[in-house]
Amino acid sequence: MLNIVGLGLSLKDISVKGIEAINKSGEVYIESYTSLSDYTIQELEEFLKTKIKVLHRSEVEEEKPFFQKDKEITLLIYGDPLSATTHTEILQEAKKKNIQTKIIQSVSIFTAIARTGLQLYKFGKTASIPFWTENHKPESFFDLLEQNQSIRAHTLFLLDLNPKENKFLSIKEALEVVQEIAEKRNFKLGKAIGCSRLGLESEVIKYDSIKNLQKQDFGKAPYCLIFPGKLNFSEEEFIANY
Amino acid sequence: MLNIVGLGLSLKDISVKGIEAINKSGEVYIESYTSLSDYTIQELEEFLKTKIKVLHRSEVEEEKPFFQKDKEITLLIYGDPLSATTHTEILQEAKKKNIQTKIIQSVSIFTAIARTGLQLYKFGKTASIPFWTENHKPESFFDLLEQNQSIRAHTLFLLDLNPKENKFLSIKEALEVVQEIAEKRNFKLGKAIGCSRLGLESEVIKYDSIKNLQKQDFGKAPYCLIFPGKLNFSEEEFIANY
Repeated sequence: MLNIVGLGLSLKDISVKGIEAINKSGEVYIESYTSLSDYTIQELEEFLKTKIKVLHRSEVEEEKPFFQKDKEITLLIYGDPLSATTHTEILQEAKKKNIQTKIIQSVSIFTAIARTGLQLYKFGKTASIPFWTENHKPESFFDLLEQNQSIRAHTLFLLDLNPKENKFLSIKEALEVVQEIAEKRNFKLGKAIGCSRLGLESEVIKYDSIKNLQKQDFGKAPYCLIFPGKLNFSEEEFIANY
Repeated sequence: MLNIVGLGLSLKDISVKGIEAINKSGEVYIESYTSLSDYTIQELEEFLKTKIKVLHRSEVEEEKPFFQKDKEITLLIYGDPLSATTHTEILQEAKKKNIQTKIIQSVSIFTAIARTGLQLYKFGKTASIPFWTENHKPESFFDLLEQNQSIRAHTLFLLDLNPKENKFLSIKEALEVVQEIAEKRNFKLGKAIGCSRLGLESEVIKYDSIKNLQKQDFGKAPYCLIFPGKLNFSEEEFIANY
């Protein structure tokens, strides 16, 4: 049995079900520590009272030491195990190998966005804003903002990151990219919501004009941006607090 | 301090953070037991090792006994505390009363839908399909399917329920309503995904034509329906299993 257990967004977000799975497991793995959480692997080991083997991305994608028949194994995932697409691939492969899997979900950025006061059922499709380089300036994420706005849905953008190289696209940089495309496409940008470390004690949420958001200090990553669609009264009232 | 703690979808989905909040609380409340979970209040009390006071809807909306200054209180919510709109109202009112709040999130239907193999970032807006009566046949939920399909996003429909009267809109009935509107609007319905008790051990997920879904036995509520937008290869491969 392979338990794929979500750690959620902060140290104690893991569910009781997740703790029980770990306690039954012979081995506990985690995908290479990406320093996006507010705790270290050692702190996690102390909290979970278990030894954790850290896997590099290539081990997760190629060797896959967590595929062991007739042994209870747990693979820990930051956030919710089903929010990232790579993990459905693990599920598919486990099925082919005849290894039973159990998904234990947790808190995800996809529900933490409701902390802003915007309602989950009014969000449209989600995209990531990638790093731009001199020669590579992808715009496809912006199509999605246009699509969502066409049905007046809210848009969540996750900001790109490369923790291994300690590179995180900042809200300021992301907004520069967004503005550049908006000008080119003659798209009128309204106010936006900038968030950092959503779901953590130290989260920052700001609702303001693009210009003012760019001046804000959001502290450490991870970051996301929300472009609201049509706000209702209750949403208006709530986000006015930020 | 008012802790608003999500119970998630099944008994042990509550987070460690949620358990800690309960253990610090003088009183623990829950909104009137709606029998949508697969456990009783007594089982919940035994699991959480605490006495729970059950509140009726009117007590949650009017008397609000959980607003107590200078006392640590926990209000338990099925699912995720921010997925339902009523709870942002509690947050707003607490703020006005100068009572500090802490939201402790949990597993939600908004992330559990990824158990189908569809990717969360490709979902559009969400609606509920209401009961139809002789004199009241609202269609507005269907506008949303049209909107989402216009941007090729997946659509989640939650099916209406009235646990107090033990009434639950079934997948068969909901699909009849959907078909009636689709015919009137000349909207071509493709295959859909019918789900019951998503996130529970006993969940059922079926991907099939409307006609075949209507013949399926989904067992007990809660139910939801998903109309996929554009499926990518990995999604196709995954849902082919159902």
